[in-house]
Amino acid sequence: MAADRSEQPLERMEDLVSLCVRRGYIFPSSEIYGGINGFWDYGPLGVELKNNLKSRWWQRVVRERDDVEGLDSSIISHPRTWEASGHVDHFSDPMVDCRACKRRFRADQLEDAGPCPSREGSAEHDFTEPRHFNLMLKTWIGASEDAAAVAYLRAETCQPIFTGFKRIREVARQKIPFGIAQIGKAFRNEINPRNFTFRSREFEQAELEYFCHPSEREKWFAHWLDERVRFHREIGIAERSLRTRPHEPDELAHYAKQAVDIEFRFPFGWQEIEGVHDRGDWDLSRHGEYAGKDLGVTDPETKEHFVPVVVETSVGIDRTCLALLCDAYAVESLEGGETRTVLRLHPALAPVSAAILPLSKKLAEPARALHRELQRRWNVFYDDAGNIGRRYRRQDEAGTPFCITYDFDSPQDDRVTVRERDSMTQERVALDAVSSYLRERVEDA
Amino acid sequence: MAADRSEQPLERMEDLVSLCVRRGYIFPSSEIYGGINGFWDYGPLGVELKNNLKSRWWQRVVRERDDVEGLDSSIISHPRTWEASGHVDHFSDPMVDCRACKRRFRADQLEDAGPCPSREGSAEHDFTEPRHFNLMLKTWIGASEDAAAVAYLRAETCQPIFTGFKRIREVARQKIPFGIAQIGKAFRNEINPRNFTFRSREFEQAELEYFCHPSEREKWFAHWLDERVRFHREIGIAERSLRTRPHEPDELAHYAKQAVDIEFRFPFGWQEIEGVHDRGDWDLSRHGEYAGKDLGVTDPETKEHFVPVVVETSVGIDRTCLALLCDAYAVESLEGGETRTVLRLHPALAPVSAAILPLSKKLAEPARALHRELQRRWNVFYDDAGNIGRRYRRQDEAGTPFCITYDFDSPQDDRVTVRERDSMTQERVALDAVSSYLRERVEDA
Repeated sequence: MAADRSEQPLERMEDLVSLCVRRGYIFPSSEIYGGINGFWDYGPLGVELKNNLKSRWWQRVVRERDDVEGLDSSIISHPRTWEASGHVDHFSDPMVDCRACKRRFRADQLEDAGPCPSREGSAEHDFTEPRHFNLMLKTWIGASEDAAAVAYLRAETCQPIFTGFKRIREVARQKIPFGIAQIGKAFRNEINPRNFTFRSREFEQAELEYFCHPSEREKWFAHWLDERVRFHREIGIAERSLRTRPHEPDELAHYAKQAVDIEFRFPFGWQEIEGVHDRGDWDLSRHGEYAGKDLGVTDPETKEHFVPVVVETSVGIDRTCLALLCDAYAVESLEGGETRTVLRLHPALAPVSAAILPLSKKLAEPARALHRELQRRWNVFYDDAGNIGRRYRRQDEAGTPFCITYDFDSPQDDRVTVRERDSMTQERVALDAVSSYLRERVEDA
Repeated sequence: MAADRSEQPLERMEDLVSLCVRRGYIFPSSEIYGGINGFWDYGPLGVELKNNLKSRWWQRVVRERDDVEGLDSSIISHPRTWEASGHVDHFSDPMVDCRACKRRFRADQLEDAGPCPSREGSAEHDFTEPRHFNLMLKTWIGASEDAAAVAYLRAETCQPIFTGFKRIREVARQKIPFGIAQIGKAFRNEINPRNFTFRSREFEQAELEYFCHPSEREKWFAHWLDERVRFHREIGIAERSLRTRPHEPDELAHYAKQAVDIEFRFPFGWQEIEGVHDRGDWDLSRHGEYAGKDLGVTDPETKEHFVPVVVETSVGIDRTCLALLCDAYAVESLEGGETRTVLRLHPALAPVSAAILPLSKKLAEPARALHRELQRRWNVFYDDAGNIGRRYRRQDEAGTPFCITYDFDSPQDDRVTVRERDSMTQERVALDAVSSYLRERVEDA
């Protein structure tokens, strides 16, 4: 892996995927059975990155706000939910089949189809007319398949927020404006899963639905767009890798007044990682109608009765993890012609906060004591085997921001050497100050 | 709700369920559509309780252990997974139908069937012969239902641990003995979901599979049983509500050498909340066979090649939340004939760690400043409306361990009153000591 290869986006992406698999960030689900297209597992490092990202979102969007309530709804909900939302009738892609090679393509993505392998030379495919193909995953609930009710795996986490709106507003005694947020899995039967975890069939979303008076929608739209862009910067995504893109009028869903995508510059192009959408009163009105319930609210002062409009922020957790990894990944030339691979992840997001690396196995006992102390608060890794340079490289590759070396001076001066991942600078830190050193740089970062 | 009613287990359970729904801990999924049998949503308080429980499990089982690695696998995996595991052929309940009332029952639970409503008087049902009914939820992945591959929603979170065993051992450079753990959703098409969230169709598991040499299985079984019982005590479950129950030889799965259930005394009887099982080498051997891969390991010293045996700890997150709520729920008689409802949840598990309650709206500004400071680390609730006694009662009912009252003396002496939920005792605490007060009693508890 040479430094110049790392400057070509798609080769760089290949190297990153290979690093992810090799180091156990993310690898194919059911790999020993040849994998299953569009499904991925997060390994020991990946699960920590993903959990750190979800915790931070929850902290910023739910816990720090008096006007947002959390929810954790079931993945399977009453099938009327998806009739009311329009998914049963309209959540579909137009598909065409090639009569020669039998492969299936999205009619709106035919530029990716390439020549037909079953026809002479580089002849084009022999396509059928487009047909609609629903993207929801279907199952059956109940005692036998014939008698049972069809049900769908949720295609987005927001619908149970709308069906739970009335209950949650009442139990939390919230007044408009306020929001409901949740993090969870969603499923879409994508025809062509691709770009690693970017387009997969099972994915995780973190969504906020913020309910407000129609006259305040623009104010809250601007507020949340601003908050969400700030969030992506805060978790360490570089300014040059991030942009906002307002939807063109013809891109807007029929019920939407305004929509802005937050896009990240992936090696495979600028792509959406989050959407901020004004969904109007579409969802509450539809569920009110289908359930025969009034989901409107009454303003306690003006007595006006109205259906709140919704500003939605919807971020892909897997996509953001991938963006973080892409942005963090670097292959650097060092003095002496060596190269190192490093994941420059934000310290608060990095899977391992610090590695304890005693210079020799003879120093294991006091190093392990430090490890035990730090483990109570952070995810800390211990490694006393092999040459220290090689151990640093392994931690660089894992994205660990701090390596703490317990050396032969440490028993005398009660100090350890802390090496910072990005600058590779080292400083001596008193043993009893290591906790506050990490707290400042990891927890409060 | 009178105190004596709370001493009758089933009435007590009814009152607890009603509290959960009314306060937004847990309520029926898709409630506005009449609910969907066996599916539940966790509301603003419930999601925090559940997240706190999951974090603590992750901290104890994964982060604090050098010999355990985390995983977050997809819910849908390659269908061969469930053939190898035996679920496709054997994960079924024997069912009977009543020819008169058309209702369906588990053949092994006919004592619950009651008289048949379609027949004269209290006549019994007219049952068919038992038939087997597979409990896995089925779906289809791919471009169209006819051509697509059948897939299953995972019936337990452990199978992807077994299929990922080789990859994870290698990326984490672990040697036997070590474990792999994950938390996540699982699905079973239960015929008769019941007892609130205890038996539902969508539920969350936290599972550890610990891989060891066959000669060490008994040692590790004892170790993990001990650890897991300690965990339940640590999160505040009373000793009298907890017991271990070894499986009788005829209860053991054919591959199991030993199994112990950790049971909780629910109002509806002693029931399993966690299982500690010796699964032998069944799973790794079967997946090795079905995938045509060698999942064995070689001892670096003795050069012995063997398939590790597995000690599993499998806890139901929903069941444990329900146990915590049952154990915490109390209706107390106070002086003056008043009663209060209180959830005596462990402070580290309680959804809200502290409530900031200024005695008057005039004190909102400094009280809000304290609120903002504490919100950076804990889930803290702010409420300045209504009579202080009523505000205390609402927090008791939500399980909030500490109420912090900012009163008219506070601006002078820079102190606040902290009221402890269970004892209802109050003490004055310096404003700048509130953080360390909470850290000691919530975080480090």
